[in-house]
Amino acid sequence: MENKRNLTMLCDFYELTMANGYYKCGRGDEISYFDIFFRSVPDGGGYAIAAGLEQIIDYIRDLRFDDEDIEYLRSKGIFDEEFLSYLRGFKFTGDMWAVPEGTVIFPNEPVITVRAPAVEAQFIETFMLLMFNHQSLIATKANRIVRAAEGRSISEFGSRRAHSADAAILGARAAYIGGVAATACTITDEMYGVPATGTMAHSWVQMFDSEYEAFRTYCEIYPDSATLLVDTYNVLKSGIPNAIRAFRDVLVPKGIKKCAIRLDSGDITYLSKRARKMLDDAGFDYCKIVVSNSLDEYLIRDMIRQGAKVDAFGVGERLITSTSSPVFGGVYKLAAVEKDGEVVPKIKISENVTKITNPHFKRVYRLYSNETGKAEADLITVYDEKIDENAPIEIFDPDYTWKRKTLENVTVRPLLVDIFKNGELVYDVPKLDDVRTYCASEVATMWDEVRRFDNPHNYYVDLSQMLWDIKQSLISKSR
Amino acid sequence: MENKRNLTMLCDFYELTMANGYYKCGRGDEISYFDIFFRSVPDGGGYAIAAGLEQIIDYIRDLRFDDEDIEYLRSKGIFDEEFLSYLRGFKFTGDMWAVPEGTVIFPNEPVITVRAPAVEAQFIETFMLLMFNHQSLIATKANRIVRAAEGRSISEFGSRRAHSADAAILGARAAYIGGVAATACTITDEMYGVPATGTMAHSWVQMFDSEYEAFRTYCEIYPDSATLLVDTYNVLKSGIPNAIRAFRDVLVPKGIKKCAIRLDSGDITYLSKRARKMLDDAGFDYCKIVVSNSLDEYLIRDMIRQGAKVDAFGVGERLITSTSSPVFGGVYKLAAVEKDGEVVPKIKISENVTKITNPHFKRVYRLYSNETGKAEADLITVYDEKIDENAPIEIFDPDYTWKRKTLENVTVRPLLVDIFKNGELVYDVPKLDDVRTYCASEVATMWDEVRRFDNPHNYYVDLSQMLWDIKQSLISKSR
Repeated sequence: MENKRNLTMLCDFYELTMANGYYKCGRGDEISYFDIFFRSVPDGGGYAIAAGLEQIIDYIRDLRFDDEDIEYLRSKGIFDEEFLSYLRGFKFTGDMWAVPEGTVIFPNEPVITVRAPAVEAQFIETFMLLMFNHQSLIATKANRIVRAAEGRSISEFGSRRAHSADAAILGARAAYIGGVAATACTITDEMYGVPATGTMAHSWVQMFDSEYEAFRTYCEIYPDSATLLVDTYNVLKSGIPNAIRAFRDVLVPKGIKKCAIRLDSGDITYLSKRARKMLDDAGFDYCKIVVSNSLDEYLIRDMIRQGAKVDAFGVGERLITSTSSPVFGGVYKLAAVEKDGEVVPKIKISENVTKITNPHFKRVYRLYSNETGKAEADLITVYDEKIDENAPIEIFDPDYTWKRKTLENVTVRPLLVDIFKNGELVYDVPKLDDVRTYCASEVATMWDEVRRFDNPHNYYVDLSQMLWDIKQSLISKSR
Repeated sequence: MENKRNLTMLCDFYELTMANGYYKCGRGDEISYFDIFFRSVPDGGGYAIAAGLEQIIDYIRDLRFDDEDIEYLRSKGIFDEEFLSYLRGFKFTGDMWAVPEGTVIFPNEPVITVRAPAVEAQFIETFMLLMFNHQSLIATKANRIVRAAEGRSISEFGSRRAHSADAAILGARAAYIGGVAATACTITDEMYGVPATGTMAHSWVQMFDSEYEAFRTYCEIYPDSATLLVDTYNVLKSGIPNAIRAFRDVLVPKGIKKCAIRLDSGDITYLSKRARKMLDDAGFDYCKIVVSNSLDEYLIRDMIRQGAKVDAFGVGERLITSTSSPVFGGVYKLAAVEKDGEVVPKIKISENVTKITNPHFKRVYRLYSNETGKAEADLITVYDEKIDENAPIEIFDPDYTWKRKTLENVTVRPLLVDIFKNGELVYDVPKLDDVRTYCASEVATMWDEVRRFDNPHNYYVDLSQMLWDIKQSLISKSR
């Protein structure tokens, strides 16, 4: 597939006006530090899943302004020729650190940090944010839905309701990271190896003179993967009896014991129980029941509670758009600049205290209890602080500083890993299946209280004493 | 830009299993008719705006399976070699009718109709739906937001929260159709000519030693388009005074009377009134006030009601994701097949009566009152029915058939126009600016009652007597 695209110009126009501005006033080469972080978890959940890094890496590596881009920019009449020739040779020369895809992440901690000349660091903002925001949104939602299904498999079925092509393609990729087993989106299988699945639409059934003929024909063509859609006319009176007849006439003589039916409308819980009984009574206790129809984590949880007989779920629009919470609010904020080789912390003040940023070039550590293996807290420090995991570590709430806790016998893991060094990729991009496995193992280190759908426990994301002191002094200075 | 992509494989996997199935059982060439229609307007609105047709046309025209696609399909182990060689030469050979982009559309009427051999008509389902659904969603939302602003200009600012690259690029395109004036998304300007706009982020202000220096430098570099972001530290105490000083020091000596400030946080209504007064008192009554910060049609309406002094709005995440209603539910349903040259209507029955489809190959007409110029009703007919606009036309509610109305002195306009004929494009794709103008004129033909945000009047979408009779007889036959 020739799916090479030049998305360099997928940037907010102000990235270009600012870049030209920095360049013109001689500040383009000043080294600056930016963080991507987010402020709240979609759906009021206890944690999010980071995704999108692979596409961000591809974008940064391929970044180039081609002739058409330069010509377009010239036509705007506000950019200097000198700046335009600089853009012709533009490449990213900075450093980048990020949490690997599939990592469990929390509000207000840096998940990507960029250190680069101001022009470069500023320019990549829009693309990085949209890629991180979209895939993290879908991975996070998928993880909720997967948890609700309690071990039953989830397939992603939402392409037709996705927000255009990339949302379908990369949404299915992100959903796989979050734990879904398969997708209906064929190109995501072709491009990323996410298993594609699917059998028939209602139109297949309607194209034949009878439902039975449609089912029998399908079983003859695909004897090893026959999932029959039984709700085109009437599930109980027509769909299931015809499915049973087709299985009996085509699969049984071949000795095939693999088949399924799909319910896509009506009261799925009720119909699944009736269907299960009809199939069992007819000797098809091995026939699986797959259901779909505007499902999400809450509907799936309720169906299971009410005893629905379901083996697998297809989830469409409510996953691929994260309908109940369709925005992931990652932002990209200046945290520091370098002056004469020194890192000078920068802060963004706001009337709204929750919007005040954490200044400085930082590191993030996750503290795991050696006793339980569970994650206890994340600690954000200044870049050159050391944490001694052999000594007790006191953490405290950055807002209510009298809330303190001492952790002992913990393993300390740095979350941010090296991605680019002087513009060179130094990260070994993992295979998607490994990302998915890593994500599941990360989620397993979270306490149940953090994994709860509603009113989860607020996982601790604290600042080191040194970082907290720097932040307070910057706030005081600005008043 | 080399933005050629092969998105042929962006299809639900079942399109391929069904296509292979039709091919194998000798039904691949049977002529079938499919409609795209939708069942409810997002946000409970009174109408939607059709968008996405240009990209659907590009897709159908470029449709081809390349070597990699065939290789991938072969690797799945379920497709016949004969079918795979058929796919190598695959192209769309059918007919297509559609409402032009920018058309006001209503639930349950066909907005795109495809007539093609079964394999072809089925295969294009997923891509057509996702493209139509996404852009219609955003055009519809944009149109609500534009109406709320009562003539003030709206800029689309949401790329960073879009569901990946296409959602940003084509979302900005769709928003323009719906009436926004500009976008921050540079590539949408480069590709589609939607005017790109933008000036500075908070990071620009933070990069300088003082806010005044940041503002003055910006005014010096862009004297003709200085919009200063005044909320990095404190809007009233620092931002506006520094902006006034920068305008006075840089723009006034040059005699430039074009400038603006942007508010991006806090109580925008209050701050805009205070800002207006401060600017006016300083002699900058020509300085515009631009605001942004998670806005949507309701917040904008409230701000205007409360007397906010705003000249232009930047709208981000709530437009680009249609946050309050992020799914456009367009579906693609079989409506008829041809047997021995006869069109045989097909229906999809459902326990849920609202999900029963309108059968047959159909036409859609919009009836405008010659007296008021307003649209009074849409009428769906069988393809070969004639409507005589010189005689009174009786319409009736398809569910409550005793609700009847006779329309006289109307102009009857067919909504569906020819797009493809025997696989050849016969449609002259309009320029985007013309689509936008057409959309505005279409919306102007709607009664205020239909344009209301909440509880709008249900615009009549009725079936002709002939079509209604055919539908009833198909329903009876299926029971």
